[in-house]
Amino acid sequence: MTLQNPTTPQKKNVGILIFPEVEVLDFAGPFEVFSRTRLEGGVASRRSEDSAPFEVFTVAKTMDEIQAVGRLRVTPTYSFATVPNIDILVVPGGFGTRPLLEETETLDWIKTVGQQVEQLTSVCTGALLLAKLGFLTDKQATTHWGAWDMLNQIDPSISVQRDQRVVMDGVVTSAGVSAGIDMAFSVVEAFHGKAVADETAHYIEFLRRG
Amino acid sequence: MTLQNPTTPQKKNVGILIFPEVEVLDFAGPFEVFSRTRLEGGVASRRSEDSAPFEVFTVAKTMDEIQAVGRLRVTPTYSFATVPNIDILVVPGGFGTRPLLEETETLDWIKTVGQQVEQLTSVCTGALLLAKLGFLTDKQATTHWGAWDMLNQIDPSISVQRDQRVVMDGVVTSAGVSAGIDMAFSVVEAFHGKAVADETAHYIEFLRRG
Repeated sequence: MTLQNPTTPQKKNVGILIFPEVEVLDFAGPFEVFSRTRLEGGVASRRSEDSAPFEVFTVAKTMDEIQAVGRLRVTPTYSFATVPNIDILVVPGGFGTRPLLEETETLDWIKTVGQQVEQLTSVCTGALLLAKLGFLTDKQATTHWGAWDMLNQIDPSISVQRDQRVVMDGVVTSAGVSAGIDMAFSVVEAFHGKAVADETAHYIEFLRRG
Repeated sequence: MTLQNPTTPQKKNVGILIFPEVEVLDFAGPFEVFSRTRLEGGVASRRSEDSAPFEVFTVAKTMDEIQAVGRLRVTPTYSFATVPNIDILVVPGGFGTRPLLEETETLDWIKTVGQQVEQLTSVCTGALLLAKLGFLTDKQATTHWGAWDMLNQIDPSISVQRDQRVVMDGVVTSAGVSAGIDMAFSVVEAFHGKAVADETAHYIEFLRRG
């Protein structure tokens, strides 16, 4: 079942930022969605990269192993120094975002890359970092329910959408943790249409919500 | 908000098996759910382990870094040789389960541990491994839709439930990938009640389905 002409000109690079105390599902959900998306449907197409429209990788400040929330041990594919060009940047959340709000090197990296990418996205409290850098000024956005007020404390111009899982206003932000899966499907749909997004949701048996 | 007396006698150890080409969300979903469950609700309780009823860790044949599906790099917390006692075993799926069907050391480990645990569970095609070891004989069970037939080829006595995301028949099996999140919540509910499971679902903004 060909959902879209698989000879797309070029794969998009999806870079997923990871850092100490990143929330596991915040980065693993979008990783799963983008890396399993295929323009050719079914199970067999997932055994190769032939019809994969995205190249997905993690990136961190250094190549050191990261301890995520709950002590999951993850090693990034690239560091800030070695990462290739990113087309879609995913900034996840987790308790680790709070120290990052004061961490110049990571903030500078997000600012530089965020200005260059085709699509900037966040999951959960990753939105706090985007707000801190001015990416959400005068925009509609959302974050984990526990951080709604903090998002507006960082930037009062943000119109916080408390009743939506995914908010697309130039930057794509999502509600907490599992809403990052919905966010990723929204981006897949924006790039490759609803049929591709829905077929990948069927493959991972995820029931998409509006 | 205390959902259950937090002075439970002892934490349950949740061991999540990982292996080359394990599906990312298959292990990361249950890891997220079990590791974020708290008997004291709210955001602040997630900053400590005080009311955590589960101790969650990954385990693999050796301590070598694992390359999951999509090339996510994960290092196990324990190897078969060093892992502590497991109360709840999660066997995830992914293309990596197919070679494991012929891999004696891992099968022997799952068989031994699976007979000792309080609760044996699988996500997605992890059910193929349980079927191969006879854990699902004469039981109702499920797996990823792409492996329904294979599950019955391995053990024709299994009553494959094609319309359920989670099947609890002594062993707890789930449908594909994202259904592992539902599976984990079903186990949390079985151990600690619906209020605890629902509050954790609210924390990770996951909409539970029946």
